[in-house]
Amino acid sequence: MFHHSSKLQYEVRVDNPDPQFAKYLQQAIGGVEGEIRVAMQYMFQAMGARGDAKYRDMLMMTATEELSHIEFLGHAVALNLEGAPLTVQEEATRDPVVKAIMGGANPRHILSSGLSAMPVNSNGVPFDMSHIYATGNIAADMMANAMAESGGRVLASRLYNMTDDAGMKDMLSFLIARDTYHQQQWLAVIEELGGWEKALPVPNSTPEEHEAMEHSYYFLNTSLDEPTPEGRWTSGPSLDGRSEFSVRDEVKPEGQKPDLGKARPHSATQVEQQ
Amino acid sequence: MFHHSSKLQYEVRVDNPDPQFAKYLQQAIGGVEGEIRVAMQYMFQAMGARGDAKYRDMLMMTATEELSHIEFLGHAVALNLEGAPLTVQEEATRDPVVKAIMGGANPRHILSSGLSAMPVNSNGVPFDMSHIYATGNIAADMMANAMAESGGRVLASRLYNMTDDAGMKDMLSFLIARDTYHQQQWLAVIEELGGWEKALPVPNSTPEEHEAMEHSYYFLNTSLDEPTPEGRWTSGPSLDGRSEFSVRDEVKPEGQKPDLGKARPHSATQVEQQ
Amino acid sequence: MFHHSSKLQYEVRVDNPDPQFAKYLQQAIGGVEGEIRVAMQYMFQAMGARGDAKYRDMLMMTATEELSHIEFLGHAVALNLEGAPLTVQEEATRDPVVKAIMGGANPRHILSSGLSAMPVNSNGVPFDMSHIYATGNIAADMMANAMAESGGRVLASRLYNMTDDAGMKDMLSFLIARDTYHQQQWLAVIEELGGWEKALPVPNSTPEEHEAMEHSYYFLNTSLDEPTPEGRWTSGPSLDGRSEFSVRDEVKPEGQKPDLGKARPHSATQVEQQ
Amino acid sequence: MFHHSSKLQYEVRVDNPDPQFAKYLQQAIGGVEGEIRVAMQYMFQAMGARGDAKYRDMLMMTATEELSHIEFLGHAVALNLEGAPLTVQEEATRDPVVKAIMGGANPRHILSSGLSAMPVNSNGVPFDMSHIYATGNIAADMMANAMAESGGRVLASRLYNMTDDAGMKDMLSFLIARDTYHQQQWLAVIEELGGWEKALPVPNSTPEEHEAMEHSYYFLNTSLDEPTPEGRWTSGPSLDGRSEFSVRDEVKPEGQKPDLGKARPHSATQVEQQ
Amino acid sequence: MFHHSSKLQYEVRVDNPDPQFAKYLQQAIGGVEGEIRVAMQYMFQAMGARGDAKYRDMLMMTATEELSHIEFLGHAVALNLEGAPLTVQEEATRDPVVKAIMGGANPRHILSSGLSAMPVNSNGVPFDMSHIYATGNIAADMMANAMAESGGRVLASRLYNMTDDAGMKDMLSFLIARDTYHQQQWLAVIEELGGWEKALPVPNSTPEEHEAMEHSYYFLNTSLDEPTPEGRWTSGPSLDGRSEFSVRDEVKPEGQKPDLGKARPHSATQVEQQ
Amino acid sequence: MFHHSSKLQYEVRVDNPDPQFAKYLQQAIGGVEGEIRVAMQYMFQAMGARGDAKYRDMLMMTATEELSHIEFLGHAVALNLEGAPLTVQEEATRDPVVKAIMGGANPRHILSSGLSAMPVNSNGVPFDMSHIYATGNIAADMMANAMAESGGRVLASRLYNMTDDAGMKDMLSFLIARDTYHQQQWLAVIEELGGWEKALPVPNSTPEEHEAMEHSYYFLNTSLDEPTPEGRWTSGPSLDGRSEFSVRDEVKPEGQKPDLGKARPHSATQVEQQ
Repeated sequence: MFHHSSKLQYEVRVDNPDPQFAKYLQQAIGGVEGEIRVAMQYMFQAMGARGDAKYRDMLMMTATEELSHIEFLGHAVALNLEGAPLTVQEEATRDPVVKAIMGGANPRHILSSGLSAMPVNSNGVPFDMSHIYATGNIAADMMANAMAESGGRVLASRLYNMTDDAGMKDMLSFLIARDTYHQQQWLAVIEELGGWEKALPVPNSTPEEHEAMEHSYYFLNTSLDEPTPEGRWTSGPSLDGRSEFSVRDEVKPEGQKPDLGKARPHSATQVEQQ
Repeated sequence: MFHHSSKLQYEVRVDNPDPQFAKYLQQAIGGVEGEIRVAMQYMFQAMGARGDAKYRDMLMMTATEELSHIEFLGHAVALNLEGAPLTVQEEATRDPVVKAIMGGANPRHILSSGLSAMPVNSNGVPFDMSHIYATGNIAADMMANAMAESGGRVLASRLYNMTDDAGMKDMLSFLIARDTYHQQQWLAVIEELGGWEKALPVPNSTPEEHEAMEHSYYFLNTSLDEPTPEGRWTSGPSLDGRSEFSVRDEVKPEGQKPDLGKARPHSATQVEQQ
Repeated sequence: MFHHSSKLQYEVRVDNPDPQFAKYLQQAIGGVEGEIRVAMQYMFQAMGARGDAKYRDMLMMTATEELSHIEFLGHAVALNLEGAPLTVQEEATRDPVVKAIMGGANPRHILSSGLSAMPVNSNGVPFDMSHIYATGNIAADMMANAMAESGGRVLASRLYNMTDDAGMKDMLSFLIARDTYHQQQWLAVIEELGGWEKALPVPNSTPEEHEAMEHSYYFLNTSLDEPTPEGRWTSGPSLDGRSEFSVRDEVKPEGQKPDLGKARPHSATQVEQQ
Repeated sequence: MFHHSSKLQYEVRVDNPDPQFAKYLQQAIGGVEGEIRVAMQYMFQAMGARGDAKYRDMLMMTATEELSHIEFLGHAVALNLEGAPLTVQEEATRDPVVKAIMGGANPRHILSSGLSAMPVNSNGVPFDMSHIYATGNIAADMMANAMAESGGRVLASRLYNMTDDAGMKDMLSFLIARDTYHQQQWLAVIEELGGWEKALPVPNSTPEEHEAMEHSYYFLNTSLDEPTPEGRWTSGPSLDGRSEFSVRDEVKPEGQKPDLGKARPHSATQVEQQ
Repeated sequence: MFHHSSKLQYEVRVDNPDPQFAKYLQQAIGGVEGEIRVAMQYMFQAMGARGDAKYRDMLMMTATEELSHIEFLGHAVALNLEGAPLTVQEEATRDPVVKAIMGGANPRHILSSGLSAMPVNSNGVPFDMSHIYATGNIAADMMANAMAESGGRVLASRLYNMTDDAGMKDMLSFLIARDTYHQQQWLAVIEELGGWEKALPVPNSTPEEHEAMEHSYYFLNTSLDEPTPEGRWTSGPSLDGRSEFSVRDEVKPEGQKPDLGKARPHSATQVEQQ
Repeated sequence: MFHHSSKLQYEVRVDNPDPQFAKYLQQAIGGVEGEIRVAMQYMFQAMGARGDAKYRDMLMMTATEELSHIEFLGHAVALNLEGAPLTVQEEATRDPVVKAIMGGANPRHILSSGLSAMPVNSNGVPFDMSHIYATGNIAADMMANAMAESGGRVLASRLYNMTDDAGMKDMLSFLIARDTYHQQQWLAVIEELGGWEKALPVPNSTPEEHEAMEHSYYFLNTSLDEPTPEGRWTSGPSLDGRSEFSVRDEVKPEGQKPDLGKARPHSATQVEQQ
């Protein structure tokens, strides 16, 4: 069950409100790199967690933290919209420069939300919940989470560069820090479970007889003119310790030429196809 | 530039066509765990790759392989739809059991595609390209790829269990194998770049002064009644070697109580708010 | 800031797990009538609330409650999926009735989530955040909330009818009760602000000179053959007390015939259009 | 059955075409507050209306009116795009101010629609029909409609403020007026059916034994530090006259700690979870 | 402006209500082959029509007809849902065959719409307005329309085969007929404008100097092992009469190897990329 | 099976990088008129092709070509983003004109993709795969393809007009040329199959007894005040040679007034409806 306290997790200060930056910040709320995504992803993973209960607890605790991030980012968006023009009089609409700057704002911050945050990204596209990745497999889920936090910290770093407002930089430095931790938190679970050697291939419970193992350890060079890019993935022991990496570069289809034959009667195809 | 040869990458055989399994297989084509996703994700990452060119080449080569996976899975769906009823006469509609089984099929396989594959998942929801994760940061992208392949292998393993068609099991064992390799391929890039110790935190180019480092290494216990779930993430050296993990469990908001004050005139709010 | 306690807000018990009912329950999580919607809607309204701060506090408190509803519903879905077939052996796939019943389940509960809840509706369509209605106008928002809770209680009542599991009926009776309260909670705000007479028309701050008041109080009968359906909306004082309702049934366009003339050169239209 | 007459319902005049305002106006066509939504919502409600037929007739008549609103708004968008640059020569692209202003336009008005309206909102996001709310319950539907018209009038008022074109202001004053009426029209149905006292809780046909009535009339304070915001919703008779409002502020979970136990074999989870 | 008469354009009769067929019929309402699409597509094309006004008039008249098709199909869906189970008692839920048949129905017809039509397709996916194709180019638009009507008639023919209800067959035979006409209606516009020879290439107003004409008339064989499929498109005069078709089958990239070089500082990429 | 060669199909050169044009170009990648659409559409049509195998081969070869178009357009977007500001220092943020111009860029090109292409349109809306039209009927599919290429060439022509970069104009002139050919390629299939006279109505395999032929050849004038727009579609032989076109302009509904009667008990409607 959830509870709330009335103060924000972190202080939010905006020295110079900026409607364009409000639009940019939306990416951290409703973007695929944003906080709605991680809050909901960790919550759904927690609700489906099977196995050692401590992972479920950890997921739910961090889901709860991410909800608090949505909250203070939402406040940051609203503060950046303070003073945005609500009428063409204020806007000094005949000043083409002012008008142009407003052209870079999200019109829905004025028209739809009344100068506050929305669950959309920086293009105004609403977040959709298909981005909540939760497979029930703890290794797959931990990777999804580490990935989400990596995307999140990339985004926060870019936002940090795109503002010179001291308050916003301070808030973003906090987000950058928490994303640092969360990346490691999820990867630490994999380390605790034995690292890649034990976790891979995910799922590590798939019986070997379900796998055509002769195809499991080669890099396939599908290029007609480019040599194989050599690296850790083309030779040496596989990360799961089961085999050696190799390369296949004379690519040869192993299957048939597909042929579905004629269409059946009553298939609403053209007569010529039947 | 792309080229094509007329045979499939892998042989596809369906011994007992099954329209319900055709619907299930769609998840591997148009699901977030599916092949359109990885093909397009690797292609867009390749197109945006900066730095050592061998990673771009590798990405494009594997993108090309995944396109071939779409192709043979599409053939598998069509073969599973062979013989599906096209009229109520064939369907023996008055046999409630037959009718019920068709209730488990995707109606659009009959109504829309004419008994062939569609770019949708097993619920019939079209794939949407917001799932193409490509940040330009190679570590974030490699994690996104390892994650995608983990989800893919979880899915292929589940599909393997949900059919007893020998041909389908054979094809899925090939997919399971390639997903094994691709998981390691992307993680091997991170290992080659120095492993987590050098890659973390992602992005590793963010200047330390942009980060509120005092918040970078603690687990935040947001629970009111649950002890901190202890593990690799609560103590010991951080995975990036920069610090030690710790725990904060007396959670205290650090921010203000948010207050936006009154609404401005002309904001189309209620008078009482202004 | 948010916090969590480890127990569910309400006890969840499933006596007879039912994968079809698990699919139905998803509507209450990820449907437009569901709990993600209200949790996020109230939270975004709170973050944008201007005017008397008590409404913001109330919104956030109820948002917090709705998060707890997502949590116990998610548990209910997982419990209904206990024992669902994971392999065709278990499934006794050759029994067409069993197979048919599984045809009515959501395949992604097996393939994607590993027998747990997802943020999707009963058709498997992911929730999308465009359904978070938050205008910044308190009356419009309260109506959106009352509407959401009405849809929610309609849904919960229908779900109640569609199960005979005693545990599920008990849980749904709690949801029905809370939806009862929440409908009234939001409407009570309007009553407190003076009722419809003062709240209407929303926004009540629009200056009268911005409104073509001669068009503000008549019902327009656009039917060619049907008499005006008479009722409270066709005569008597308007609900805002500003005027009297009336009817217009000789419908006459008041505008021009639209005509955009010829297309301009360089418009990539056909030559014949230019 | 529908018919059409060639003139617009209302005169549309644009004195100073403005491509940015064309983008803004799209919100009134393809936004969730827009005319496609209400036209289709009333039409689908009419098609599913059961009970007194006059409500169905009323819904269809107003659906028809809203179709006419789409039509004249579409014309308004096209007129605002008259003269928008189609080539960089016209655009005087080297004038950065002109270029910047065009940056605030919707590129698809130039690239995709050929200077005319599209069924998208002011961010260019296509309208999606999940926003057509129609439950078959007349009270829930009337609230959905009153809510839609409230959002619509908030939007129209904000658009009015964001233009100083006399023609556009005139057209918007008509929309503001019709939204005034339509808000009251739908609420008048509820009044005619006995007002909130009889309509609540929606649905009013749910048997009381399906409802855990001990949870139906209290406000739940989920805050750890904030006193209950007192108001009409915390004391006094409930709006449905069935009970008294009260408050619960020592929040205590009533449910169990959720625990799904171990994952089953063949679930494609990690071995450690099974 | 639109008007309505109270009777349906065509008689709708359902002899044996069938909830599964109700789900199938949704494809004709909210599918990409359905009536919402054509109604809205023709309406938006009409609103953007430039050039000879008779085409705009024709588009709006047919848009109006398609609105009437939505209306009678909506009634057909509701009639097919008459008698669908609303409670598990009615449903005789312990009869697994009955339960299985309901598994093939759309749960939202019971849970969300109250036994009536929704603006969704046969998978329950809401129609989204991005499918309204309207370019402002009359030839492109006529092709989009002919295509939509072709898809529509394919669908109606398949639906006809999937029911043996005499009333439904009668209604579908009307839709098949109207789709016959509408296909020709739109193609007749192209014929009237001079046929393909004058219409192609679309747009026919693009100056020849904007086109690399040496690439305009050859079929590119991108296959490594398959001979060119010969046909009308590989030799003989081009359909626009401007040239002769030919074939290129020694495929050779004409461009450079793409190379974006190193990532810039401050790009939040990994250090190794910079 | 697919293969790749390392060079682009066509040379891409950007003389003056332009972030606004990068946003515009996205329409040609991830718009409904773009290359992802045609690549995937032709590929899915090929995978479902039944009848003469040469059409399948042709579809797959052209799908392969379109994949190459995605690739070089992706490179063009990245080149247009070279030098875009990554920090407010570079951006000279205090210069309002520079800031305004950046307001016209896609923020996600900076925040999300790291200055490279994304699978989104010029509004930043991700491509969704519901736009892959593939019915299994060759005539319907050829029309869908000709339509897609018409939209594509309209778009390319407009993009050509909106840039004065010589490199971009050169690349677009190649796309314009290939779209010229592809339009004709698909229409040539219809010509080869006997032209409209044999192809229409699509599907040409629908038995005449499934069609209410008395409704198959008239134009329905649904306008109350506008004369029938006369043209090739109102008189003369039908394009399929089966009949003569005619006109119906006294529009009379042929169906009943719809009436669903009362709502059933347990339908969660209001009591007044039951």
